[in-house]
Amino acid sequence: MKIRRSERMVLISNYLINHPYELTSLTTFAERYESAKSSISEDIAIIKRAFEASEIGYITTVTGAGGGVVFTPSISDQEARQVAEELRERLSESNRILPGGYIYLSDLLSTPTWLKKIGRIIAKTFKDQKIDAVMTVATKGVPLANAIADVLNVPFVIVRRDLKITEGSTVSVNYASGSSGRIEKMFLSKRSLKPGSRVLIVDDFLKGGGTINGMISLLTEFDSSLAGVAVFADNIQSKREGVPYKSLLSVTNIDTQNNVINVELGNMFQ
Amino acid sequence: MKIRRSERMVLISNYLINHPYELTSLTTFAERYESAKSSISEDIAIIKRAFEASEIGYITTVTGAGGGVVFTPSISDQEARQVAEELRERLSESNRILPGGYIYLSDLLSTPTWLKKIGRIIAKTFKDQKIDAVMTVATKGVPLANAIADVLNVPFVIVRRDLKITEGSTVSVNYASGSSGRIEKMFLSKRSLKPGSRVLIVDDFLKGGGTINGMISLLTEFDSSLAGVAVFADNIQSKREGVPYKSLLSVTNIDTQNNVINVELGNMFQ
Repeated sequence: MKIRRSERMVLISNYLINHPYELTSLTTFAERYESAKSSISEDIAIIKRAFEASEIGYITTVTGAGGGVVFTPSISDQEARQVAEELRERLSESNRILPGGYIYLSDLLSTPTWLKKIGRIIAKTFKDQKIDAVMTVATKGVPLANAIADVLNVPFVIVRRDLKITEGSTVSVNYASGSSGRIEKMFLSKRSLKPGSRVLIVDDFLKGGGTINGMISLLTEFDSSLAGVAVFADNIQSKREGVPYKSLLSVTNIDTQNNVINVELGNMFQ
Repeated sequence: MKIRRSERMVLISNYLINHPYELTSLTTFAERYESAKSSISEDIAIIKRAFEASEIGYITTVTGAGGGVVFTPSISDQEARQVAEELRERLSESNRILPGGYIYLSDLLSTPTWLKKIGRIIAKTFKDQKIDAVMTVATKGVPLANAIADVLNVPFVIVRRDLKITEGSTVSVNYASGSSGRIEKMFLSKRSLKPGSRVLIVDDFLKGGGTINGMISLLTEFDSSLAGVAVFADNIQSKREGVPYKSLLSVTNIDTQNNVINVELGNMFQ
């Protein structure tokens, strides 16, 4: 397809946005748009400038025979903080209080525009880590894991609290559930995680940390290692064992008597 | 932010890609990039040509005082068919057979690059329908619902088979589960779906259709209506009541004796 430079730039930038963390050779673009590699190279310099000026992301050039360009999505600190601030206000709404110190947050984690931004913020927080997969526990963590995996361009892995025939053979571990006060089981399909993976564990809401610890022990069973733990929100009133984690938001107080939730920005912003 | 035309075009196209189905006024872009509305209008004409030539999507101009531009993502018929063909081959792999006529497909529905393409194909199939929300049942349908909702820029709604405290008050319906041969319950949080919504119901694998029928009866409880049903794959060997649906892939035979799965393109391609 032979097209004008301006149109070609639109298409190349669209391609890069849809293929984050992937190395694409200039030859691929040159052949696709029937243009000289030198022209493609100039296009990419312009796209790089535009993306970096607005902190949409970074374009890295890898030189040499197997070289090309890699797009790494990002978000500006200012936008990240603004998104977190908007979410903080939404999470503070008094009608979200549920019995047992829980908060209704399914609506925030089922709106694509929020999820995309949350995914970018969390991916940026772990930008110095090599991450091969994102792991979460069913059901509420799934959209969050999906959003982060989307930005990182890696698969996500869903741990279940029940055994489903559609998962094939599974590995299970026991964990101490803070909410039920009992020892529970969690299951992961044997095929779902490659041995030797570096895994980012995510969840929607961190209370006691039992499920996170359960997922960490699953990593050992899969000869895999922990790249980090990220949660949408934590409740700092809950006591928990020392797993280091990053939170987007932090619930500091739930006053069920007066129907007040206090929320601050999480430790990602410290 | 004052920038050069070529960079501005890259940023406007990035903005449109990230805000599908949203009306944005030319004034918004003009103010953002400190440019004349006439220049923005020319930029958009170029982006429109590029997007439409490669069938990335369509840009519609709404004239008048409250006007602006709307980006509708798409995928070319050729690419849709090619994606479906690749997925067909993957789904035919003999090691996917599970007991009970099920097929392991979690890996395909947990890879962002596949999900994005699947989302576009299904969204395009229902392009003539007004859709306010995408509904699915936990857990395996969630990434699919997320992917489609992402393209349509609408929220998704997760029906559960168990009662969770974190969902607040719920509405439940009974449905006939083909897999257990029993009457089961499904639950949907009262806050999760606005009355009067037009809903696209999606699921990963359609066998008897019991869960789909359950979700359809939930719609009535929420004074909402059905915009359509889409599944990643159906099993045409299963008998089911006449719910019209669209499938991306169709499993025509599972031969557990000889470990052979036959898969064809689904009825979306007819």
